[in-house]
Amino acid sequence: MTNPLPTGATIGILGGGQLGRMLSVAASRLGFKCHIFEPGANPPAGHVADAVTTASYEDDAALRAFADAVDVITYEFENIPTSALDLLETLRPIRPGREALRVSQDRLVEKEFLAGLGLKTAPFADVASRADLDTAMETAGVPGILKTRRFGYDGKGQARIMEVSDADAAFEAMAGAPAILEGFVDFSHEVSVIAARGVNGEVACFDPGENVHRDGILHTTTLPARLSGAQRTDAVLLAGQILNALDYVGVMGVELFVTPKGLIVNEIAPRVHNSGHWTQDGCVVDQFEQHIRAVAGWPLGDGSRHSNVEMLNLIGDDMDQVPELAKDPAVALHLYGKAEVKAGRKMGHANRVLGAA
Amino acid sequence: MTNPLPTGATIGILGGGQLGRMLSVAASRLGFKCHIFEPGANPPAGHVADAVTTASYEDDAALRAFADAVDVITYEFENIPTSALDLLETLRPIRPGREALRVSQDRLVEKEFLAGLGLKTAPFADVASRADLDTAMETAGVPGILKTRRFGYDGKGQARIMEVSDADAAFEAMAGAPAILEGFVDFSHEVSVIAARGVNGEVACFDPGENVHRDGILHTTTLPARLSGAQRTDAVLLAGQILNALDYVGVMGVELFVTPKGLIVNEIAPRVHNSGHWTQDGCVVDQFEQHIRAVAGWPLGDGSRHSNVEMLNLIGDDMDQVPELAKDPAVALHLYGKAEVKAGRKMGHANRVLGAA
Repeated sequence: MTNPLPTGATIGILGGGQLGRMLSVAASRLGFKCHIFEPGANPPAGHVADAVTTASYEDDAALRAFADAVDVITYEFENIPTSALDLLETLRPIRPGREALRVSQDRLVEKEFLAGLGLKTAPFADVASRADLDTAMETAGVPGILKTRRFGYDGKGQARIMEVSDADAAFEAMAGAPAILEGFVDFSHEVSVIAARGVNGEVACFDPGENVHRDGILHTTTLPARLSGAQRTDAVLLAGQILNALDYVGVMGVELFVTPKGLIVNEIAPRVHNSGHWTQDGCVVDQFEQHIRAVAGWPLGDGSRHSNVEMLNLIGDDMDQVPELAKDPAVALHLYGKAEVKAGRKMGHANRVLGAA
Repeated sequence: MTNPLPTGATIGILGGGQLGRMLSVAASRLGFKCHIFEPGANPPAGHVADAVTTASYEDDAALRAFADAVDVITYEFENIPTSALDLLETLRPIRPGREALRVSQDRLVEKEFLAGLGLKTAPFADVASRADLDTAMETAGVPGILKTRRFGYDGKGQARIMEVSDADAAFEAMAGAPAILEGFVDFSHEVSVIAARGVNGEVACFDPGENVHRDGILHTTTLPARLSGAQRTDAVLLAGQILNALDYVGVMGVELFVTPKGLIVNEIAPRVHNSGHWTQDGCVVDQFEQHIRAVAGWPLGDGSRHSNVEMLNLIGDDMDQVPELAKDPAVALHLYGKAEVKAGRKMGHANRVLGAA
């Protein structure tokens, strides 16, 4: 058992976006300081962090100085260059660990990992070449979605194949990147479990939220989700199975399709997750503090919910709604302080508290 | 009507303690950056602020540079040197304004202001000399408390006069500072109203909390307080009267004694207040965000409470309780990141969520 990190210690966070920002705020509630490592200028997390390193992930000297300045390292996104991790892990603990990153950085590896645990996934097939795609359409089925194996998020790096004749265009859209074909799943709705595991193996889950997407980006998450008691139990059990198999430390987002035949795992994210933002206004310990507690070796919150919540993402000029949302006494605003509004950019979110859970 | 401060703007905060720290975190939720001005090194607020100026309140150049860097100025404590305010107010709006500071910086002026509004206070008398104290004991009564007019907090600068023979020692304890004698009030318990007023005159109050002190320092605040409906209404009305009389902008803490003859105003604080910390885990918009909303010209939260809460201050080695408190799923911890534990120092607080309000 690792000793808990004492209050006053410094947590290093790779990535300075809104997730790092909200992690830093949560860490401050436990008396921790945060140090952000981010290549881009003026990162949102920097506004509420004790220190910021602005450097490339290829800058070994900057990585070393960052590691020297912190007690433990975590991250807000999964696509951290392997070379940076190779260096950092010789200097400080990285939580969650490398195995979670290895699995979640590659859609094919992830699907094989999940299937290996006996969990249901969408039918899938490896697509390394145009010829592979023809075979894949037979095994994984059409309609389906062709996705790059790596570096996809928010619907980027994806092409739909509604019929076999879409195959050429879809393959072109991958621009030569290794891909995976995922067959469509006939699901009624999507939910996600925000699960956490501590350094001592303790697991805690927040109640699943129900997600609605728009244009491939999360639009709302609503609590409670439409799920039977048995489905809720299944969701928690399978999340626990994933965390234990990875010897995971931290918060993970697990997206699930709800189908008549049971829950199907869509994807996992080894970090705090947009579909867990509702916890900020529905729980005593939110997903951000839960993650900090886990990586710091502290006891986890139990995930219980005091209030029902609808989380609404504010994307691009959804920011025009802020003056109205600010007047609504049931709405908690969470804006990210991004300098420029851009189409498709996550600018903030609004948690509408719907009443006692 | 002033235009609301746009998200992305910078709020200057005079004082870098725990109140500034929690103001900075709350400001980040609305997309604001905070710049802290604090003479002391390593201020708790600096861990979660975009910028920190470490300089004396006598350093005009530093004050000017600070004002240039921010859009509006607020503060976390009332004893800001007048000369600094004289300079700053020529450069940027200061909210709450000077009148609130003038009144609350001096216990005698404050009592006279409250009495002038027709509000009940403890009996009081000005004590500028030893001879004044004899007269004061007759008019304000014995037992009573002799207090310095200025710079007192958390029971500092106070001496009890239980009988007339205590007068010499009490007067000595003031060390020549102008003082005020306050006669004892026969009260059953103390409550406080955390009230806010916006730039457009809008007023919103949180439900009063019930305070218990230990050794002159706040120990717990519990919601709901023991108050009748009529007393709750009185508390809100008198808080509104105070805010309106001062043309106040921001959050104010109003401490009230509950007596058989009605509510008696103990003291007012022109800032967020320790007895309002419960709002962080009981309300959609907490006192810190409420203050930021007010000084930024945004709409106020309505002050409604979703959960009952008991706030427990962690003073000095109460920090030893943190490992146990961290295991309690009903407890939200708020630690201040202060480097050194000292007797009597406020190190953090714990909000125990007691269930739906």
